[in-house]
Amino acid sequence: MSNDRILRPIQWKGGLDGHIAMIDQTLLPEEFKIVRVEDVESVWDAIKRLAVRGAPAIGIAAAMGVVLGVRGCDEGDEVAFHGRLREVCDYLRTSRPTAVNLFWALDRMMRCAGDHAGQGAVAIKMALLNEANAIRDEDAAMCRKIGEHGAPLISEGCGVLTHCNAGGLATAELGTALAPLYVAHAAGRRFRVYADETRPLLQGARLTAWELRQAGIDVTVICDSTAAVVMREGRVSLVITGADRVSASGDAANKIGTYGLAVLAEAHRIPFYMAAPSSTFDLSLVDGGGIPIEERDPDEIRRGMGRQTAPADVRCYNPAFDVTPARLIRGIITERGIIEPVSRATIAATVARVGS
Amino acid sequence: MSNDRILRPIQWKGGLDGHIAMIDQTLLPEEFKIVRVEDVESVWDAIKRLAVRGAPAIGIAAAMGVVLGVRGCDEGDEVAFHGRLREVCDYLRTSRPTAVNLFWALDRMMRCAGDHAGQGAVAIKMALLNEANAIRDEDAAMCRKIGEHGAPLISEGCGVLTHCNAGGLATAELGTALAPLYVAHAAGRRFRVYADETRPLLQGARLTAWELRQAGIDVTVICDSTAAVVMREGRVSLVITGADRVSASGDAANKIGTYGLAVLAEAHRIPFYMAAPSSTFDLSLVDGGGIPIEERDPDEIRRGMGRQTAPADVRCYNPAFDVTPARLIRGIITERGIIEPVSRATIAATVARVGS
Repeated sequence: MSNDRILRPIQWKGGLDGHIAMIDQTLLPEEFKIVRVEDVESVWDAIKRLAVRGAPAIGIAAAMGVVLGVRGCDEGDEVAFHGRLREVCDYLRTSRPTAVNLFWALDRMMRCAGDHAGQGAVAIKMALLNEANAIRDEDAAMCRKIGEHGAPLISEGCGVLTHCNAGGLATAELGTALAPLYVAHAAGRRFRVYADETRPLLQGARLTAWELRQAGIDVTVICDSTAAVVMREGRVSLVITGADRVSASGDAANKIGTYGLAVLAEAHRIPFYMAAPSSTFDLSLVDGGGIPIEERDPDEIRRGMGRQTAPADVRCYNPAFDVTPARLIRGIITERGIIEPVSRATIAATVARVGS
Repeated sequence: MSNDRILRPIQWKGGLDGHIAMIDQTLLPEEFKIVRVEDVESVWDAIKRLAVRGAPAIGIAAAMGVVLGVRGCDEGDEVAFHGRLREVCDYLRTSRPTAVNLFWALDRMMRCAGDHAGQGAVAIKMALLNEANAIRDEDAAMCRKIGEHGAPLISEGCGVLTHCNAGGLATAELGTALAPLYVAHAAGRRFRVYADETRPLLQGARLTAWELRQAGIDVTVICDSTAAVVMREGRVSLVITGADRVSASGDAANKIGTYGLAVLAEAHRIPFYMAAPSSTFDLSLVDGGGIPIEERDPDEIRRGMGRQTAPADVRCYNPAFDVTPARLIRGIITERGIIEPVSRATIAATVARVGS
């Protein structure tokens, strides 16, 4: 893959007086627009209104938002600087109260400032910018490794089914579930991707289809309910999805619909893989039963894309995630290699490993 | 159920110079509008654009469309009349290629005209109108019988999952898959229905939810991809869908997504039933492999609800139906009783039975 075709949804441009350049994902697929973000309020707003989405991408945006937020500080007063920094972090924390990577990134920025305490505001600002860029670069490197580990699964001429968007748009670049596809494509392999549209928010149709096409990868959008037929007709030989949280047992939460896909894949003897960085594993959770499932606004179903698509006050059941039991997951592709088979032992061996 | 609450989506109003009064289902659930249809082209168009939909309702519409189509004929020339009739039937046949009831109704109208050959165009027109009304009335009676046979499956307090709309809107009245629910509800039984929204055209969210609420039945809309979770969480103990065409082996075509539901139901040990009148069985088809599957406009996926929801020119795979193999179907509820187990022998015994 030529370097200039890699999608980078969020980047810092320039030095300390620079800005964030981010793709406004709310406009996709109709419009591809890179917006210039120059103040922390605009970062908060971009996270809130999903202009930037995907746990890793949100973390990166928040880290860069911190750099913007402390920019105007009096450089002669380091105490005031630390106060302002805390204020900025507290503010950004409120943009999406459930996003774990958001808190993780802000904590990391606070720690960075703490490590440089006493060196003066200018030096700390520089350290914070470097840290934000490091968060982005580390995520990009992690995604690339997931891609390299997963790429051998993508054989010449095969079909791959994916769900939701665990792609470049959700990360620094390349994505998680889509990273193996990008790496295989760059190696010249030809294959076809089926993208579930992913109701109710259609991330598959809007985002996955868009970014795979940008990369020149053959993609076909299907309704979620067509996945079983695509499997039965032999159109796909592999399923790869992302994962939002993986328990110590390997039970994994991901976008609603993932569990059903895993059941269907088993019934059709198609291997079902997930892709996630090791930071997605929560070893404090014994199994999937402990993963809280967010239930979202019924209007995501009732007023789908601006039109009334169900009776205005009809009851809806709208869980945002489901949990796929470990026994249905052939393997989990991480930056440290593929965990396969998925078991407490193999997860512990990979995820708890130090210094790898 | 009080008689005036029964939904009748398509009726002939008046005599030979009358018209079709049909609910424009494309406007639901936002608007309940009965449109007046006065020419055969408008019938073809109504079938094509799904203003009238559901196999039995399409059959009724086509039969009534024949009456409209031959209306302008020179009444003095019976030979020309039969020619025009054939032309009208051939034309209507092209509106929906998978709908066996369409062909069945048109054949029946042709036979009716044949039976009255030699009696002059006026008499044949009258016979055709009577035949079209008879098709409607027989369908209503058939649906009621399906409801009566199926109602014992609906136990007090149970949960039922359905897909698409095989309800009153799809038939003369009461529906097929929903008829057992209406009959059980009228008998005072309480239960909950989960309605798959049914992408891409959302017949479940738009129509099933609407008509069940009209009848006062407890209904919850879910995204299609949530069905697996609803099963896993024990919310439903039964699945009932309609069927568009059933082969001699019991393999059955129905709305895309039905096959996946049947696989999921088996995996969760939930009985999967279909409901269909015996006219839906096509004993000339040895098995489901012979059922042609209509592939529809990709823009149903790409421009789903009026908004661009996928890249404008992205490839989509949009089969309107899938085929569920007989082995996944616990029983088929017909107006002659429930065919259970589903096999060539039980189907032949029920469907080929004469005079029942």
